[in-house]
Amino acid sequence: MYVVIKKNSDLGKIQLLKQRIEQMDCKVVEISDREQIKIGIFTKNIQEIVSKLRKEEIIEKIVQIDSPFRFSSKEFKESETIIEVKGRKIGAGNLVVIGGPCSIESREMIFDIAKTVKEVGGEFLRGGAFKPRTSPYDFQGLGEIGLKYMREACDRYELVMVTEVMDTKDIELVGKYTDIFQVGARNMQNFSLLKELGKVKKPVLLKRGLSATLKEFLMAAEYIVAHGNYEVILCERGIRTFESATRNTVDINGIAYLKSKTHFPIIIDASHGTGIRELVEPVTLGALLAGADGAMLEVHKNPECAYSDREQTLNYEQFRQCVEKIKKTMEFKESLKCI
Amino acid sequence: MYVVIKKNSDLGKIQLLKQRIEQMDCKVVEISDREQIKIGIFTKNIQEIVSKLRKEEIIEKIVQIDSPFRFSSKEFKESETIIEVKGRKIGAGNLVVIGGPCSIESREMIFDIAKTVKEVGGEFLRGGAFKPRTSPYDFQGLGEIGLKYMREACDRYELVMVTEVMDTKDIELVGKYTDIFQVGARNMQNFSLLKELGKVKKPVLLKRGLSATLKEFLMAAEYIVAHGNYEVILCERGIRTFESATRNTVDINGIAYLKSKTHFPIIIDASHGTGIRELVEPVTLGALLAGADGAMLEVHKNPECAYSDREQTLNYEQFRQCVEKIKKTMEFKESLKCI
Amino acid sequence: MYVVIKKNSDLGKIQLLKQRIEQMDCKVVEISDREQIKIGIFTKNIQEIVSKLRKEEIIEKIVQIDSPFRFSSKEFKESETIIEVKGRKIGAGNLVVIGGPCSIESREMIFDIAKTVKEVGGEFLRGGAFKPRTSPYDFQGLGEIGLKYMREACDRYELVMVTEVMDTKDIELVGKYTDIFQVGARNMQNFSLLKELGKVKKPVLLKRGLSATLKEFLMAAEYIVAHGNYEVILCERGIRTFESATRNTVDINGIAYLKSKTHFPIIIDASHGTGIRELVEPVTLGALLAGADGAMLEVHKNPECAYSDREQTLNYEQFRQCVEKIKKTMEFKESLKCI
Amino acid sequence: MYVVIKKNSDLGKIQLLKQRIEQMDCKVVEISDREQIKIGIFTKNIQEIVSKLRKEEIIEKIVQIDSPFRFSSKEFKESETIIEVKGRKIGAGNLVVIGGPCSIESREMIFDIAKTVKEVGGEFLRGGAFKPRTSPYDFQGLGEIGLKYMREACDRYELVMVTEVMDTKDIELVGKYTDIFQVGARNMQNFSLLKELGKVKKPVLLKRGLSATLKEFLMAAEYIVAHGNYEVILCERGIRTFESATRNTVDINGIAYLKSKTHFPIIIDASHGTGIRELVEPVTLGALLAGADGAMLEVHKNPECAYSDREQTLNYEQFRQCVEKIKKTMEFKESLKCI
Repeated sequence: MYVVIKKNSDLGKIQLLKQRIEQMDCKVVEISDREQIKIGIFTKNIQEIVSKLRKEEIIEKIVQIDSPFRFSSKEFKESETIIEVKGRKIGAGNLVVIGGPCSIESREMIFDIAKTVKEVGGEFLRGGAFKPRTSPYDFQGLGEIGLKYMREACDRYELVMVTEVMDTKDIELVGKYTDIFQVGARNMQNFSLLKELGKVKKPVLLKRGLSATLKEFLMAAEYIVAHGNYEVILCERGIRTFESATRNTVDINGIAYLKSKTHFPIIIDASHGTGIRELVEPVTLGALLAGADGAMLEVHKNPECAYSDREQTLNYEQFRQCVEKIKKTMEFKESLKCI
Repeated sequence: MYVVIKKNSDLGKIQLLKQRIEQMDCKVVEISDREQIKIGIFTKNIQEIVSKLRKEEIIEKIVQIDSPFRFSSKEFKESETIIEVKGRKIGAGNLVVIGGPCSIESREMIFDIAKTVKEVGGEFLRGGAFKPRTSPYDFQGLGEIGLKYMREACDRYELVMVTEVMDTKDIELVGKYTDIFQVGARNMQNFSLLKELGKVKKPVLLKRGLSATLKEFLMAAEYIVAHGNYEVILCERGIRTFESATRNTVDINGIAYLKSKTHFPIIIDASHGTGIRELVEPVTLGALLAGADGAMLEVHKNPECAYSDREQTLNYEQFRQCVEKIKKTMEFKESLKCI
Repeated sequence: MYVVIKKNSDLGKIQLLKQRIEQMDCKVVEISDREQIKIGIFTKNIQEIVSKLRKEEIIEKIVQIDSPFRFSSKEFKESETIIEVKGRKIGAGNLVVIGGPCSIESREMIFDIAKTVKEVGGEFLRGGAFKPRTSPYDFQGLGEIGLKYMREACDRYELVMVTEVMDTKDIELVGKYTDIFQVGARNMQNFSLLKELGKVKKPVLLKRGLSATLKEFLMAAEYIVAHGNYEVILCERGIRTFESATRNTVDINGIAYLKSKTHFPIIIDASHGTGIRELVEPVTLGALLAGADGAMLEVHKNPECAYSDREQTLNYEQFRQCVEKIKKTMEFKESLKCI
Repeated sequence: MYVVIKKNSDLGKIQLLKQRIEQMDCKVVEISDREQIKIGIFTKNIQEIVSKLRKEEIIEKIVQIDSPFRFSSKEFKESETIIEVKGRKIGAGNLVVIGGPCSIESREMIFDIAKTVKEVGGEFLRGGAFKPRTSPYDFQGLGEIGLKYMREACDRYELVMVTEVMDTKDIELVGKYTDIFQVGARNMQNFSLLKELGKVKKPVLLKRGLSATLKEFLMAAEYIVAHGNYEVILCERGIRTFESATRNTVDINGIAYLKSKTHFPIIIDASHGTGIRELVEPVTLGALLAGADGAMLEVHKNPECAYSDREQTLNYEQFRQCVEKIKKTMEFKESLKCI
């Protein structure tokens, strides 16, 4: 449920109201949505809270949310959420390109890629220090030293850092370095992890599970929200289907569907989504036009020598060209709104 | 296998060569591909034919095709195939919008829709007279009378007619009316039907099967080609996956993949692909940008009264707006080629 | 809808009633179900027919069927349907083993296999003369000559013949030879074919489509029934999923589900269902215990030399052993009923 | 890689050899396989270790494993692994029935079910104290108090306790109570969790992920093994497919396939696998005959009042009957080995 605050209400009164609601043993979230201030209230005792709030002077109306994904839904917040990290904005038409390697392989390597990402106008650097690999015998990532290298590269080139955290026990460590936590597809329903990430003060980029329904995806986002973190970025990275010509199947329907159901920004990762270098650009552009707010791209100086994901990683020139077209596509998408 | 003809060869000599090859008990297809004339040769005795052709003066080179989808592949023909029907062109950047109802319901109804399709600039009318319905107790289409109405509407508004043929025994009947034969998803591997459609002189719009792999899809096209019809239009209409929030899952990867493997034009049918009216426009636009050459759209004056496919059918205003954006997207796509 | 006839009604009166109903422009089917005689009535004007029948003296009650698969459902007929062909029975605990090659390759070959099938106690011979192949360039079957060889082999060894018909135009030809028509997975929703097979007087073995839901499967059966043929045998042959270690995924849930919803017999084809020779036996036995009424098995003298389906075909010794265990399993299943 | 020890080697010498190998910075596992003693060696420097071991007197041969699932594979260990817990054996024909509720709801409830499980001859009690629920607003389990109740019930009725652990940080807590750790489907590729469970001294029951391939499933098992725990039980609980009539699709092929590739025991969970009470028994029996070594069954006094999984939970009488038939099926399966 949520309450809409009357226009021009005194800010101090709003703060007092929030405190009173928290004293009723509820968590609250305050958002601004199309000229309105709304206070979302997490509670199991809806009737009780409603009756207590009925006489509050600054409340315009009290609304119960039907959608199962409650505070992630457009029912709660109609306007698109913009997530700010170090001055960059994600969502609502802002250009978002998250580039970087699958795995951090060395200090030199991550610096070189960071430089390239910056040059072409990407503002976000991705890279894995803890890698979820199918086989226990494959390279598992550099660990903390990788995080350090990446942090340095981000500081040097003024990029926002995005890296995966795989386990609740690593949240503190990874949080010392990263700007945005990534939750991998295999962990999308690792509810313990989601709950703990609900308590951090940094955005979470949540990848869709390989066979997660769209409803489950939004519910996973809602886990983070319900535990206190209202900065969620959804990432479509392809689902598992019978088709084997491509690594996964990017769910373009899903992007358009999510856009109609949630206010959170959506990122397309066509590198994992297709698994084929040549398809990354067309699928990224198509996904953006269908509703995605930004793109994640795997890039490497020499993709054929990468430790992992060789077939799907762009080289620098391909990356540059793809980002160029992403910019044009974002502009074109904006222009379509006037039709 | 195919042979490349030397530039500036005498046309008469090319005809004679084709006749000689046909006398070797081979079917042939002559195409023009980026300034070259190529003759595709369907044969099981490659070695024998190669040895017989070796001394032909006007042959520049003899090429064997590795791709399993031989004459549908880019290995055979690099340039995009343009299919012409009644003066309209399908493929290679030409605007293609195929609009119409799921089922033809009456003469008035199909005339009204035809008028609308024409007005907004679509040049192709779709509509079903023979409907493949899951239940034997559901409306099965008007049959031949539906075909007649549709033909009249197409003549009246100068539209190209596209309608489904479900069985070899109906090819003659449907062929009396339609300009383009449609093969439905459930019949994509009805090999008897594909073979017979290989013998007609009209284009075939082939819908991807619900669980057909991309390889099987191209192989189904190759069935038509191998039996003599070189005018195939591929149609992605969504595949069946675990996701149930949408009717099917449009395979945007598949569109980009097909574009890289075949020279035939590709149409996106986001009405069946999504099953949800609101998603049709964004998914159509995204699919076009990812590589599709045109769009098929279900439209009805009052979608909520349609005999079938109500949830996914656009009303006239939605259709008009969608076509408007399709035009812009095709132009934008063209402009991206210069980057 | 159907009517239940009063016990001990005069047979002549039942015939007269059926004729009267047919004169109301309805098709009818008479079945006997657990001591009751029921007459199924195919009509769109349920109310009208009900009112006309209300005063019929020999009718005990009139029942409307809620199930979408009407006459295929247990709602209409509770007891398991037994289909008799040339003295052999399919369904309700009778041992059914349908053995044979994927494709008929020669007269000798099919005779040799027929002999083996007979020796181990199989009573049904399968084999393809018209083969649905993914590629137009692969072996497409021997055609009519294959049918002849197979008919001779069946006559020689007193086996029931099962072979695929792929197209309405072949029904007459195939019908001249076969005892049971097979509809392949790719044609499960070839509604034209299903309708025509509804008019023949021979049983139809209907294979489940690669991505057909169980509901669609039963609806396809209902197409045959609704057009007049009440002898349908369902065949689970694996569905298409993301798993690639096996050719398909046998849907054992589906077998148990079908058993609870329909009275028609169910056959398991674990050769196509698994695609791996070693898995055919365990999966067949498991499927039988879960509810299947019989097994279809691909067998060949030298599987590694077969024209098609090499990896999944049993050799004679494997076939013999598998049939042995099938017999034991059928007996064991019977014994479980007493618990 | 592994080494085979010469027959009748001195046990002390075997211990010394193992210590020497461990000093080479390798983990080792000693197993007995069909009269042979084998020492599995986990190392990245195969060549180096091979050369160091070449002259060891008690080594009969040194073998490199080709299978990607190395120590989980039959290539390493041909004979079926039997896992012993508190005197009960899992694997190799021993009757294994793991019964219990989805969630522990109260002390009385779990005691009552425990009593029933014991009475019908089940020796293992399942029940969730930490529940992975799609929605953050659904019942999440009783937590530690649930574990306590369950431990008491297991002690009272001499049952082996099986319960889920969802996060590395809970391993210690759950380990204080449970006999067998369960890893849920959503955590099958929670590699951090698998690694930590590789370090505990209790068996791990690993559920297959909803869209995990069989290869990924075995690789997940191998994660546990590679980190030191050689007691893994695999559990097939259905995969996610397009079929929606049943909750999941039990992969009976997968059971037969796993049986041919790994020596670890396999459990069928047809409650989650089907999601439909009536299908649990037939699918369980079929899966056992196809290769499963035991069954997990959800049971509740009043399934329709259960906090979760109502549709798929057996009542006491259904459970009793199902266990009865499981016993018969295990005996029958044993008898088939003599054919």
